[in-house]
Amino acid sequence: MNNFSFQSPTRYVFGRGVEYKVGELTISMGCNNVLVVYGQGSAVRSGLLDRVVKSLEENGVACQLLGGVRPNPVDSTVRQGIAMCREHGIDGLVAVGGGSAIDTAKSIAVGVYCDVDFWDLYLGKARVTNALPLGVVLTIPAAGSEGSTSAVITNETDRQKLGLTGGDIMRPRFALLNPELTLTLPMSQTLAGISDMMAHIMERYFSPTQGVETTDRISEGLLMAIINEARRVVANPDDYDARANIMWSGTLAHNGLCGCGRDEEWSAHGLEHVLSALYDVAHGHGLSVAFPAWMTFAAQSRPEKIAQFGRRVFGVTAADDHTAALEGIQRLKDFYREVGLPVTLRELGITDADYQRFAADFHRDNGPVVGNYCPLSEADSEAIYRLME
Amino acid sequence: MNNFSFQSPTRYVFGRGVEYKVGELTISMGCNNVLVVYGQGSAVRSGLLDRVVKSLEENGVACQLLGGVRPNPVDSTVRQGIAMCREHGIDGLVAVGGGSAIDTAKSIAVGVYCDVDFWDLYLGKARVTNALPLGVVLTIPAAGSEGSTSAVITNETDRQKLGLTGGDIMRPRFALLNPELTLTLPMSQTLAGISDMMAHIMERYFSPTQGVETTDRISEGLLMAIINEARRVVANPDDYDARANIMWSGTLAHNGLCGCGRDEEWSAHGLEHVLSALYDVAHGHGLSVAFPAWMTFAAQSRPEKIAQFGRRVFGVTAADDHTAALEGIQRLKDFYREVGLPVTLRELGITDADYQRFAADFHRDNGPVVGNYCPLSEADSEAIYRLME
Repeated sequence: MNNFSFQSPTRYVFGRGVEYKVGELTISMGCNNVLVVYGQGSAVRSGLLDRVVKSLEENGVACQLLGGVRPNPVDSTVRQGIAMCREHGIDGLVAVGGGSAIDTAKSIAVGVYCDVDFWDLYLGKARVTNALPLGVVLTIPAAGSEGSTSAVITNETDRQKLGLTGGDIMRPRFALLNPELTLTLPMSQTLAGISDMMAHIMERYFSPTQGVETTDRISEGLLMAIINEARRVVANPDDYDARANIMWSGTLAHNGLCGCGRDEEWSAHGLEHVLSALYDVAHGHGLSVAFPAWMTFAAQSRPEKIAQFGRRVFGVTAADDHTAALEGIQRLKDFYREVGLPVTLRELGITDADYQRFAADFHRDNGPVVGNYCPLSEADSEAIYRLME
Repeated sequence: MNNFSFQSPTRYVFGRGVEYKVGELTISMGCNNVLVVYGQGSAVRSGLLDRVVKSLEENGVACQLLGGVRPNPVDSTVRQGIAMCREHGIDGLVAVGGGSAIDTAKSIAVGVYCDVDFWDLYLGKARVTNALPLGVVLTIPAAGSEGSTSAVITNETDRQKLGLTGGDIMRPRFALLNPELTLTLPMSQTLAGISDMMAHIMERYFSPTQGVETTDRISEGLLMAIINEARRVVANPDDYDARANIMWSGTLAHNGLCGCGRDEEWSAHGLEHVLSALYDVAHGHGLSVAFPAWMTFAAQSRPEKIAQFGRRVFGVTAADDHTAALEGIQRLKDFYREVGLPVTLRELGITDADYQRFAADFHRDNGPVVGNYCPLSEADSEAIYRLME
């Protein structure tokens, strides 16, 4: 096991009706003039935004509104938000939505303190120094950004989709998690979220670090819970407990718990980012295509952890590691197909795949050799993209 | 799933050599004049106390020392510490040791702010209002107090052993977890710790609340990890990774993660507290006797969750819940015996058991009906004590 430091200071307030606490919690994080960041209208249509603004106003918190954040959120919205913060003397942010709204708000929160353009933080040319306090009202369990130290933004000019890990300063101060808000999510979006949170766990699980039984068992347990509850929510989208378990799993998948004591992988995420930067593809749908392909490639040279995944998560009984790994991958793909997630590029609507370009973009954004469990050259990555056919 | 609020603000710094960070972290919690609370000499003999004091002094932190804290820590030490804090204008505490040192330090931290005698907090006659900041250097993975909101103290006058749950204010600000410090623990103490942390998980797991798959799977995963690593540490006490996984599991067992979204049980802990208040019994040894007895009694009327435990943690295959529950209990007792933990009162050295008195003491401290999963009357509790024979 590696040395590590772990702190999860975000206050998670979970359950029915918790969005009404947003005003009180915003005050408790020391803010009274906030920018509310939200998406493309579902929070407006459902009345959630009104409830959030009302709770803020009842607690004497002034609000500016920044709506219209899109899936795969973009740099221009972040710049707009930074300008609004400076113009209105904003002292905190409240994100209402899923990963897109939260990642936009996080980028604004750190960008406000940046002398140069905020994108330099993503390019590694500038460092995160400070952040406005941020609270979250979560509506889409998927990205795990409500408890994480990172954000992902797409630059519209060069179609680069990059992540920024700013450390604990980028964690939200509070996250309000009401599973009722997710009962009306379209099933396609629910499933994309499920794929995303499973990938967050697996990126940490497929680690070269030995001797991490505790973190392994937590990760396997979360994966089993998500798989079980995904089947329940597909059978009955109104199942509150299934929605609740998925929501809580999505937070724990990405708040760092599953990474304690080990090196992480993250290749499948990078392989997918290329796809959703070039095509109109939901990140979670791209991941259910990319992850089994990465696993299939990795199993050729390093089957052991993938075999453990197959045995412990899906009950595979094969004694040989390579066989158990391949059976585990097949069971994962079967699960994705069973609930309605894509597992091929064709199912994503990508019929003009340029594998060489995908691999070139991936290594442009991540360096010549990518990954810890299974380090990838550009030729390896191209081979993985071909496995997504 | 129940509504819940969860925050784990304690900074866990984990790995080899982390005790050298105590000075820097004490400064970062805003303290420069601390009371160092430790046990009966092993921290002195090993040189750990010297390293801690040196690190504090190098960072300009003045120290007062309060040693001699005993297992099943007592009220008089707490009063001594409170007096020292007042006399020396102490602004923070550093506990070096296991649950006894930490629980003593926690009680001092809240007792300093108490106008009346601190024991009134334990009796429910006064409320926790404030606490001195507390840091921990953990040497015994067992009580989980390094990440918990609670403490347990024994009143020497009336032999009452009571717990105090003071909320997040009682959580340590930081906990330094170096598994190397546990390599020299006597095996008996290692095993008592393993029993204690398993009980912390099981007290939350045997819950009447339905629909908590995520928290269930995390709990089952931690139990499986502890069982696996316990066997490894018995086979090779020098196994760093086994020690590390046990240490990290002990923290997660009791920081609240395993209770998210559900009512908890805690009867077995209360049943055991009676034993270690009356006899010279390590809490963890009492628990490996008390827990299977409680489970055996509970399985008569409510086998379902105990059956799930048997199936998921020990791989029991019986289809019938009652059979699966009894097989699970047997497997747990077999595990305890295999590693060298007691499962009967006789093995604890208690040969003069007064079951009526045990039950009367238990209900005196906990009320006429105790427990959520399986509510116990005084007659039920007496029956459970008889099952420990």
